[in-house]
Amino acid sequence: MQAPQDLDYGYVLSVDDSFENAVERLEAGLKSEGFGVLCKIDIQAKLNEKLGVEFPRYLILGACNPSLAHQALQHDIDLGLLLPCNAVVYEGAGKLFVGAVDAANMLAIVGNPVMEPMAREVNRRLRRAVDGVAAGAAK
Amino acid sequence: MQAPQDLDYGYVLSVDDSFENAVERLEAGLKSEGFGVLCKIDIQAKLNEKLGVEFPRYLILGACNPSLAHQALQHDIDLGLLLPCNAVVYEGAGKLFVGAVDAANMLAIVGNPVMEPMAREVNRRLRRAVDGVAAGAAK
Repeated sequence: MQAPQDLDYGYVLSVDDSFENAVERLEAGLKSEGFGVLCKIDIQAKLNEKLGVEFPRYLILGACNPSLAHQALQHDIDLGLLLPCNAVVYEGAGKLFVGAVDAANMLAIVGNPVMEPMAREVNRRLRRAVDGVAAGAAK
Repeated sequence: MQAPQDLDYGYVLSVDDSFENAVERLEAGLKSEGFGVLCKIDIQAKLNEKLGVEFPRYLILGACNPSLAHQALQHDIDLGLLLPCNAVVYEGAGKLFVGAVDAANMLAIVGNPVMEPMAREVNRRLRRAVDGVAAGAAK
């Protein structure tokens, strides 16, 4: 586990684990934080299929906490434009990275202060899930 | 077709059409603008399944233009935290709405000016796809 990358729009750690293990731990962590994974996008496979290019392994998990999403949509029905919250596992520069989007910074573009506490709660949960992958790998 | 809603983070029109037709036209429009739909999330079904609540029909389409996504990821590998771009079809207040996220405003939180022209290109394409649904419904 290394210090987080300096990112305004997400929380990303490098972890010393296999790709498959990291995905499994991340899904388990998201589940224990109340997030379902509503979609998985294999960027490597998709770019190879569509463009014929070689790209590192890169998986996007679309994570959604139903209760928080329901609350948020009741405040702003257009919020589906920004759901679900992404978590990622990807290879880069010989390392493996695991991360999640910064929901608070993303929701700042919505400009609705009512949603700030929800976004902070989402961030706490997403980051615990990401930290759990790194902590598990360090065992 | 009505004037766009005043939204900082998306482009949403009300359309006079059935839900099914709007989804079909939106998918066709996205395809003709070079976007594949990588995932579909049925928010109504998911909220009913997980929380037992009644919610209006609400579909999120995760749209991705492989070539633009590949370019963007080469500039910033963490950009998968913000992909794909969402398009939505939803019912509200007795009307049907179709929209897409504002990729330029969303990418502004990344703070990488290199991506601004790409985000503007994504927006032009997404908005043509949304406009096409409204134009088709008005025929």
